[in-house]
Amino acid sequence: MSKPAGVHTLIRQTHEDRVLQVLREHGALTRGQIAEHVGLSRTTLSEITNVLLERGAITTTNTDGDIRAGRGRPAERLVLDPGAGQFMGVDFGHSRVRIAVSDAAHHIIASGVEFYDPDSGWAERVDSCFRLIEQVGADSGIHYGALQGIGIGFPGPFSPRMPKPVPTSDSGTAVPAGQFVYDSFAERFDTSIIIDNNTRFAALAEAIWGSDAGVQSLVYARLSDGIGGGLVVGGHLVTGTSGFAGELGHISVSPNGVLCRCGKRGCVETVASVPAIFASCTARGVAINSLEDLRAAVAKGDPVVVGVLRDAGDALGRVLGSLAVALNPAEIVIAGDIVHIAGVIFEQAVATIGYELLPVPEAAPHIRVAHLGDDVGALGAIAALFHRSPLLASYPETTQPEPHRGPTQRNIS
Amino acid sequence: MSKPAGVHTLIRQTHEDRVLQVLREHGALTRGQIAEHVGLSRTTLSEITNVLLERGAITTTNTDGDIRAGRGRPAERLVLDPGAGQFMGVDFGHSRVRIAVSDAAHHIIASGVEFYDPDSGWAERVDSCFRLIEQVGADSGIHYGALQGIGIGFPGPFSPRMPKPVPTSDSGTAVPAGQFVYDSFAERFDTSIIIDNNTRFAALAEAIWGSDAGVQSLVYARLSDGIGGGLVVGGHLVTGTSGFAGELGHISVSPNGVLCRCGKRGCVETVASVPAIFASCTARGVAINSLEDLRAAVAKGDPVVVGVLRDAGDALGRVLGSLAVALNPAEIVIAGDIVHIAGVIFEQAVATIGYELLPVPEAAPHIRVAHLGDDVGALGAIAALFHRSPLLASYPETTQPEPHRGPTQRNIS
Repeated sequence: MSKPAGVHTLIRQTHEDRVLQVLREHGALTRGQIAEHVGLSRTTLSEITNVLLERGAITTTNTDGDIRAGRGRPAERLVLDPGAGQFMGVDFGHSRVRIAVSDAAHHIIASGVEFYDPDSGWAERVDSCFRLIEQVGADSGIHYGALQGIGIGFPGPFSPRMPKPVPTSDSGTAVPAGQFVYDSFAERFDTSIIIDNNTRFAALAEAIWGSDAGVQSLVYARLSDGIGGGLVVGGHLVTGTSGFAGELGHISVSPNGVLCRCGKRGCVETVASVPAIFASCTARGVAINSLEDLRAAVAKGDPVVVGVLRDAGDALGRVLGSLAVALNPAEIVIAGDIVHIAGVIFEQAVATIGYELLPVPEAAPHIRVAHLGDDVGALGAIAALFHRSPLLASYPETTQPEPHRGPTQRNIS
Repeated sequence: MSKPAGVHTLIRQTHEDRVLQVLREHGALTRGQIAEHVGLSRTTLSEITNVLLERGAITTTNTDGDIRAGRGRPAERLVLDPGAGQFMGVDFGHSRVRIAVSDAAHHIIASGVEFYDPDSGWAERVDSCFRLIEQVGADSGIHYGALQGIGIGFPGPFSPRMPKPVPTSDSGTAVPAGQFVYDSFAERFDTSIIIDNNTRFAALAEAIWGSDAGVQSLVYARLSDGIGGGLVVGGHLVTGTSGFAGELGHISVSPNGVLCRCGKRGCVETVASVPAIFASCTARGVAINSLEDLRAAVAKGDPVVVGVLRDAGDALGRVLGSLAVALNPAEIVIAGDIVHIAGVIFEQAVATIGYELLPVPEAAPHIRVAHLGDDVGALGAIAALFHRSPLLASYPETTQPEPHRGPTQRNIS
């Protein structure tokens, strides 16, 4: 066991964070004053302030000539750039892109949404997003020169609507969409970029902003065309060793169940995804083709439909209950429009999870429906950026796409 | 979202680690030389060296009077204490306690084992352990004044052999055994102490030392009287929000299965624990009462026994496969003497896990039997100490018992 690479980087970043914090607390200070506050030598401090000046996080202001009593050349004072320390979250969805911008104090200072055709390609989506970023900047007076990072939420490996065809590179080879998005942002913005599955980002956002105090551990499942998921453990988003963590939809609940598109039988997605629920209702004689149809059937209390919804909630509850036994999370969160329309899914899931849990009151997680709205992906992307700070936690390197492996290559369908 | 408390501690510890590292690399140095190497002001550096001197991690040696050319008072030189930076791992088992001691470079420099009566109480076990620690110290010439930390592995909430009665405190109230062990060590050793479930520690040890390179994420299950487990995610041991993570034995595999001692039906423990396997064989007409009986039946290839073992491997594989879909770990490790005796359990588990996994080659974990021997718990306890280092990862605070909640209070049986 040896210490990991990057220790020096970690220390440097820790020092940078300390310098920024001292400037945040005290306003303009000379280099000598900063060095005193953070306990660093003048040489080390100079290196750090030079990096921060170059990056635009801090800026020089008036000297201390007018306020100092002593003699000698007046010393330059440094101050936080007023626009410093912004973080941007981007969430590419089926038919819209959302952005949110936070300041260094982690307050959301601007946001926006831009719609596009669900069939549009990634070049077009990225262009829409860049227009949106400019518009939001113009409206809110933000200049993006001091962006500390961009987090990009992206449809995951199992998204049935992954747009095709992917753009081609100069050499004519197909570039995975995730890589293309990453490259486009990297070319335009000189800052660090992370890209990850947007359901995972949603899980992180629910962990941090979904309840008053935030939680350090959470199991998150979203019912839609499939079932996506995300896990937060010890305050960290779990990406897994090769980026596939959180595919809760493909945990099986009945070994002899229906064949799933992933190739095995009885995945929870074959019972509790929106299309699976519609299909079950229809097969049992109640034609359901939309959430509106479902809403009407639920309002009537149709027993066939309620039965299908209970089965879905039970299957979901078994998966979430098993994960709760393994992970002992603080919260379980169930998301998706269908959960709001058909509350019985949630009710049944809660009952089943309750049965599956260890019979120890203090091991029981809080179970709730998702609180955040459509900006959950963008918020989660920002949260992931915050969590990269060395003072909080390191974001796994694997989520930064490498040339040979972009998120769309994970597509298994 | 604000930065967590403890940032200042984190920075101080980071500085301490840097100072120790510089002394490790360069041998004896004056304070001025150290300050130069680590880029700290003389004032900050002095604070840090004073703490390290007090703690006995470093010591003063000759001055630089004989080697320096300049004038002025010779400066004192500092050097790593030869015995500095030791870490001790302790593993209390059913009938023995094991200890292992590592140096600051993370090499095991001493170890030992002491046996006790399985019926002995915790006061007796702790006394045995203290005798063992003295003996190992005397044999190896280690003085424990510079211990950086002690990690103590302890039987978990579901251990059927949790010794009773627990010792009583001065006030006559029963003190949970975990708290008693913690207090006993805290009274004797002036260093930080962590205490956790020993199966979890075993999981961490397998993640770090079980394969050449070590892995950052692992799902670990051990078949014995029950089924214990441990999860490592992103290099961290998962303890869960209230300390119950990893109870893999109580994940259910068949909703209508056998009633488990935890109160629900069909837990994997009711199919794949050692007593469950013995009972199934016996119920099907092949009396198996010991691992030796089982070994003989396996050697004969008894089809009833092989069938029972396959069912156990399949149930285990379903649980581990589901967790692998959720967590995308690098490795799955199956431990327990029975796995070495009845290889078909492992074979079947591998086949079932293979079926359960996402059909994506790069998402497939490496599946193996445990590599480490009986010292796995003590090694894991040391690994947990290393992982507390701010340069590696913070060990969750919840694993340090508080007066009002010791590990044995988790006991649900």
